[in-house]
Amino acid sequence: MHNVANIIRDLNVDVSWQRAFYEDLHTHPELSFQEERTAARIAEKLTEFDCEVTTGIGGNGIVAIFRNGEGPTALMRADFDALPVEETTGVPFASTATGTTEEGLVTKLMHACGHDMHTTALLGACAFIDAARSSWSGTFIALFQPSEENGMGAMAMVNDGLANHIPRPDVAFAQHVGPGRAGEIMSMPGPALAAADSIDIVIHGKSSHGSMPHLSVDPTFVAAMIVVRLQGIVGREIPPSEFAVVTVGTLASGNTNNTIPAKARLVLNCRTYNDEIKKNLYEAIERVVQAECQASGCPAPADITYFSHAPLTDNSPEVYERVRPVFDDVFGAYSVDGTPWTASEDFSQIPRHFDTPYLFWMVGATPAAQWEKAVAEDRVLEDIPSNHMGNFLPDYKPTVKASTEAAVAAVLTYLAN
Amino acid sequence: MHNVANIIRDLNVDVSWQRAFYEDLHTHPELSFQEERTAARIAEKLTEFDCEVTTGIGGNGIVAIFRNGEGPTALMRADFDALPVEETTGVPFASTATGTTEEGLVTKLMHACGHDMHTTALLGACAFIDAARSSWSGTFIALFQPSEENGMGAMAMVNDGLANHIPRPDVAFAQHVGPGRAGEIMSMPGPALAAADSIDIVIHGKSSHGSMPHLSVDPTFVAAMIVVRLQGIVGREIPPSEFAVVTVGTLASGNTNNTIPAKARLVLNCRTYNDEIKKNLYEAIERVVQAECQASGCPAPADITYFSHAPLTDNSPEVYERVRPVFDDVFGAYSVDGTPWTASEDFSQIPRHFDTPYLFWMVGATPAAQWEKAVAEDRVLEDIPSNHMGNFLPDYKPTVKASTEAAVAAVLTYLAN
Amino acid sequence: MHNVANIIRDLNVDVSWQRAFYEDLHTHPELSFQEERTAARIAEKLTEFDCEVTTGIGGNGIVAIFRNGEGPTALMRADFDALPVEETTGVPFASTATGTTEEGLVTKLMHACGHDMHTTALLGACAFIDAARSSWSGTFIALFQPSEENGMGAMAMVNDGLANHIPRPDVAFAQHVGPGRAGEIMSMPGPALAAADSIDIVIHGKSSHGSMPHLSVDPTFVAAMIVVRLQGIVGREIPPSEFAVVTVGTLASGNTNNTIPAKARLVLNCRTYNDEIKKNLYEAIERVVQAECQASGCPAPADITYFSHAPLTDNSPEVYERVRPVFDDVFGAYSVDGTPWTASEDFSQIPRHFDTPYLFWMVGATPAAQWEKAVAEDRVLEDIPSNHMGNFLPDYKPTVKASTEAAVAAVLTYLAN
Amino acid sequence: MHNVANIIRDLNVDVSWQRAFYEDLHTHPELSFQEERTAARIAEKLTEFDCEVTTGIGGNGIVAIFRNGEGPTALMRADFDALPVEETTGVPFASTATGTTEEGLVTKLMHACGHDMHTTALLGACAFIDAARSSWSGTFIALFQPSEENGMGAMAMVNDGLANHIPRPDVAFAQHVGPGRAGEIMSMPGPALAAADSIDIVIHGKSSHGSMPHLSVDPTFVAAMIVVRLQGIVGREIPPSEFAVVTVGTLASGNTNNTIPAKARLVLNCRTYNDEIKKNLYEAIERVVQAECQASGCPAPADITYFSHAPLTDNSPEVYERVRPVFDDVFGAYSVDGTPWTASEDFSQIPRHFDTPYLFWMVGATPAAQWEKAVAEDRVLEDIPSNHMGNFLPDYKPTVKASTEAAVAAVLTYLAN
Repeated sequence: MHNVANIIRDLNVDVSWQRAFYEDLHTHPELSFQEERTAARIAEKLTEFDCEVTTGIGGNGIVAIFRNGEGPTALMRADFDALPVEETTGVPFASTATGTTEEGLVTKLMHACGHDMHTTALLGACAFIDAARSSWSGTFIALFQPSEENGMGAMAMVNDGLANHIPRPDVAFAQHVGPGRAGEIMSMPGPALAAADSIDIVIHGKSSHGSMPHLSVDPTFVAAMIVVRLQGIVGREIPPSEFAVVTVGTLASGNTNNTIPAKARLVLNCRTYNDEIKKNLYEAIERVVQAECQASGCPAPADITYFSHAPLTDNSPEVYERVRPVFDDVFGAYSVDGTPWTASEDFSQIPRHFDTPYLFWMVGATPAAQWEKAVAEDRVLEDIPSNHMGNFLPDYKPTVKASTEAAVAAVLTYLAN
Repeated sequence: MHNVANIIRDLNVDVSWQRAFYEDLHTHPELSFQEERTAARIAEKLTEFDCEVTTGIGGNGIVAIFRNGEGPTALMRADFDALPVEETTGVPFASTATGTTEEGLVTKLMHACGHDMHTTALLGACAFIDAARSSWSGTFIALFQPSEENGMGAMAMVNDGLANHIPRPDVAFAQHVGPGRAGEIMSMPGPALAAADSIDIVIHGKSSHGSMPHLSVDPTFVAAMIVVRLQGIVGREIPPSEFAVVTVGTLASGNTNNTIPAKARLVLNCRTYNDEIKKNLYEAIERVVQAECQASGCPAPADITYFSHAPLTDNSPEVYERVRPVFDDVFGAYSVDGTPWTASEDFSQIPRHFDTPYLFWMVGATPAAQWEKAVAEDRVLEDIPSNHMGNFLPDYKPTVKASTEAAVAAVLTYLAN
Repeated sequence: MHNVANIIRDLNVDVSWQRAFYEDLHTHPELSFQEERTAARIAEKLTEFDCEVTTGIGGNGIVAIFRNGEGPTALMRADFDALPVEETTGVPFASTATGTTEEGLVTKLMHACGHDMHTTALLGACAFIDAARSSWSGTFIALFQPSEENGMGAMAMVNDGLANHIPRPDVAFAQHVGPGRAGEIMSMPGPALAAADSIDIVIHGKSSHGSMPHLSVDPTFVAAMIVVRLQGIVGREIPPSEFAVVTVGTLASGNTNNTIPAKARLVLNCRTYNDEIKKNLYEAIERVVQAECQASGCPAPADITYFSHAPLTDNSPEVYERVRPVFDDVFGAYSVDGTPWTASEDFSQIPRHFDTPYLFWMVGATPAAQWEKAVAEDRVLEDIPSNHMGNFLPDYKPTVKASTEAAVAAVLTYLAN
Repeated sequence: MHNVANIIRDLNVDVSWQRAFYEDLHTHPELSFQEERTAARIAEKLTEFDCEVTTGIGGNGIVAIFRNGEGPTALMRADFDALPVEETTGVPFASTATGTTEEGLVTKLMHACGHDMHTTALLGACAFIDAARSSWSGTFIALFQPSEENGMGAMAMVNDGLANHIPRPDVAFAQHVGPGRAGEIMSMPGPALAAADSIDIVIHGKSSHGSMPHLSVDPTFVAAMIVVRLQGIVGREIPPSEFAVVTVGTLASGNTNNTIPAKARLVLNCRTYNDEIKKNLYEAIERVVQAECQASGCPAPADITYFSHAPLTDNSPEVYERVRPVFDDVFGAYSVDGTPWTASEDFSQIPRHFDTPYLFWMVGATPAAQWEKAVAEDRVLEDIPSNHMGNFLPDYKPTVKASTEAAVAAVLTYLAN
């Protein structure tokens, strides 16, 4: 069996195009389910490789199948949508793009979660793996998933017949950039990311002119009370040793200065590591929401809709035990133990559909000097830009190299001759 | 001197076009500062009368001057913008229009405040007054004001040189439809509408991914606390015998399910009948807003901007004493004593600029049977649609007749030979 | 008919004992239903007059009947209980007394509402009226009522057979000291004081150790949410032109540092001038309280008990029209028009029981210079100590003289020959 | 070296008096710093043993020194104060006692934390150890600590010269009963109980009559806002993976129905496992408290006083490694691994003062059948009475036996020949 680290070391592939490709994606972020341009750029790049490409799966989803004789099938996934965040990095290729949300809101856009890097890295891995055909056999699937941010893209691809377009993978991989020394590969068995659900809540009040509050049932007041009272759930109802997060991502009520609106809308995002906590949390949220509506005499109960379900990302110990030594080989001191992130991902919906074991790892993206200074001063939380912030920008060189090679390494762990 | 009631009775003017004109405006509502179509329709109608028309004053403002020899100058104003309210009346000419707010939000639109009726009535009054030139002398100014809903249109016309376009009026009038027996003219001396200001508040938090609230300063939570705590001002700080209203017209924070936003925005609307109460109220609001920002450790104080100032609408007792007997003459039992509304208007900015005394009256718009039933059952507040509600619709026939004739009556009180 | 002002002027009665009596009461305040010492002092003083005294009516209530031949019957009432307020006046006769509330709480006590002054004045009036028997005929009843502060004393006397102890009065009077130029008598027809009710609310939570909030239903959090949400009722549900006050007089939850208690208790006090507003207010309060209990998952609904009902104090226009000219005669420029106070009293329960018309007036108690300065600087609210404050102390001389003479004047308006 | 399990098995000591002693203590609970009767009962019992007793250390603290020749010194501590909790167990020896808190509040009392059991067990251990003198040598110190509930008793004994009354112990022990299968001994190295501090907060408002809220600064409203806003700290500011508890143990504001008080008082209890989290938590609490005072315009900042400091109870791994095998020997399957409790104790102040390593363990007190049913149904949190609840009552027989023998076992681990 070939040594994966040696294969990577010995490959002589020019991936210098990655920088221009990455910066182009970064300059042109697109919202979930609207990633037409990005998908086109990916598909265009894939024409340079010896693979079968299917586009338009579950919206803008793309799969590229690299067949190379008998052997196992390994899938690596990258996501490619962006966020309604205003970029503040100040780099020359910073985004000034705007987009329109589903709700009709015009907003600035940014690749504030690093999906541009994930996609660039997976395309680089395609180049390497395509060039290394003599060293491996089996099937490599590069899967480019849209709409990760709204938690719907993975299921959209599954529901749009993904299984008709690719063979069942024997193993699946995904990675995510984030705070950490740039180029560090952080992996672990078991839970890596939290389970999450989003909850859309519409509060039914009664509109009136702002000067006549007594004719209204003010949904803005109800919504504010709910936001305030939700804080009591984590602090009062969840065992202090357990993990639970309730975040209000959107609170929208009214759009004039002098009309009390008829409705208010809240969008919550909840995270847990445990099904019982999750059940209790959602019961408490529904209890609080409906009781606050009653307290104001709302004419109808709130509409509560769960969406964007992200399951627990729960790494297979077996896959971890095979891949980790290869990471250690390839990355040396830059292969480290990860700790669970509180964030969530819908990646695992794909291997879950195929009953395939999987590994998800994190890639540090913070310039090393900045990271070390923050660690030394115990100011990581305060000083290091994190995903979804307007100043989050991976340190390009070490991050693209590590994330490209990590994808190659994980895939070849299973496919190398 | 002619008897005004007789002039009106004896006039033989066909204003049957009012219905189609009204329904057309109703079907095509336009937001403040975007009333191009409405202004064009008004200007087009004015070409049928013997008057000098100036358009485009302070945006879409229009004045029509009817000169008729020596004599005093009387001004009557109508407003013509609409609201971001979804119509639920179900009438054939109901609005399905949408518009885009200044903030970029796409929204349904409706003439939910009856400005379409005001405009139709004033144009009808133009027809009557133009046809009755033998009965009066002096100058009649019909002023069509845009952007009343954001409280900016009157000052926009003033600041755009209104005084260069019209002679100084000796008296000014305006009217507003609302809940009440259709066709009833409600007038009073002294305060008729409250003073009001709007306050735009931007809260500076710190964004982060929804799973990492500890990296954020959550502006949604701060905004909710402010909404909740503002309630304590009216109940705890304003003397219980005094009048004050604080309404949150807009609360907007975030637009995703999983990002804690960097900023939240509140728009308040406040009403008072008394300058000292107003001063104390605004001091309390600023105190609460900034303290709540401090409580969450916001990186900067909130930005607080006052806008849309509506002064007290304070009817001249002298004008009232001249016009009221004429109303009694013309409307009989339908001329009644009004009581102050808690709402506000920017109309008085215009006579204030010219130091002109003025009278503002209300016109009942509720179908008589519906009104009487609600009064009998003591369910006016519960059952009668009010301005800014999606089901507010004047009872056309009695309302248009009364509001047209009231305009004629008030103007001729001053101009009749 | 004698001129009342002349009678008062011509009387030569030594009431210099009033100061020592007043200071003694002031030094020895007693809580509602515990006024044994005060009642004993009153009864002792009454022995000096020619009257029939009955004690122990409705607890510590006392009536003294001064019979003087044929004629109408006039009743004047004074109250004599004190408050759990800590005195901060610093005067030599300031109270350092403590008492134990019904709930078992040991607290500092103070005559912070001026009942010591009311009682001293009524005893002084007894002295005058007793000495002036030649000038009047009929029956004078001096009624000393306990337990006004908890709103229960008047009904306690009525229910304990007051009607068996006194003849039906033809007119009834009461007075109250408060902010205003010392010695000024403020009277008005119609509503003088608000209707009020107190509401005792017990919230049922579930106790646990403070380190295990998830095992509890935290009643302190529920109580706090209720206090916060009650603020929304006045500001959002009561028409802005109407009067309503909701005050939380007591919030008591827990008494350790590390146990979440099983129950919390709130005592509210609500005031209105209008029965429909009152009904809506109480419905809203019950709605809010029970919904907040539901929001936290309380094991049982809150117990809500109304108590201490104070009816509207609604002065008889007929009595006012007889007494006001006499006040004007006696007090000259110090007899002025009053405006309604937001406070409440249970006095009117007594005349209500006998279907007797009544007059209630206010007596200014603020040193004149302090009052005039505050008025001139528009700082009455900020600078003038008000009833129930620890620094409230009537300006003795002008206040005792005016309140004594006002009692005499009102009674003699009906009884003078 | 003797086998400790054998010593215990072979001892023939009659401790049947324990039941009556325990029930007597249970029937007569006393508050912290008021434990005179309990201390007298302990001292009386100690006269039956061959030991030197010193009483009155740090209030009601007692030490009994059992000297037995050369050898190490082992200290075992029991606490003996009770709580202001109303007992609901319904047992014949249930408490009906009342007491008066430091604040003057009269309250029902209960041994709701099981200190009566701790004391009974330690006295039983004294009997065993005294009877087993032939099997051990060295010094055994039985320390009976008052005032654990307010977190002040251990430091009170230390500050009152404990070191002058006992030799420095080489090892120290304590135990606590709680939920768990009765008789189970739960031990662990490292953190066993959280660090905790209590915070007394006095809010300075401005008093007024309840009908005049605008003359007040309502401290009850401020206190409620603080309780509500504190909830946002754990949910928004503490990393979701970290442990922090903020509980409001007391909220006291006002004691009448119609006076807005001048002050409100909050007592918080906060727990953490980590110094940095603790620092951030207290900063956030102070920030919230003072900002809420500012938001209401309080005349002065809140007074914030920290008290009742409980350090982390952090078991010595060395002591654990020696004692745990002995527990396994003595208790078999009833010696199990513990997990940290979120509660706190001041026990460790004593060994900390002597720089002595220590072990603290928990003793299950729930009837076995009840425990097993709750575990099977996953309803431990819902169904098992926990410390500080009015229905918490150890299952006497297995609990007293296990806690007595655990004390003997731990001490003899160090002292047995």
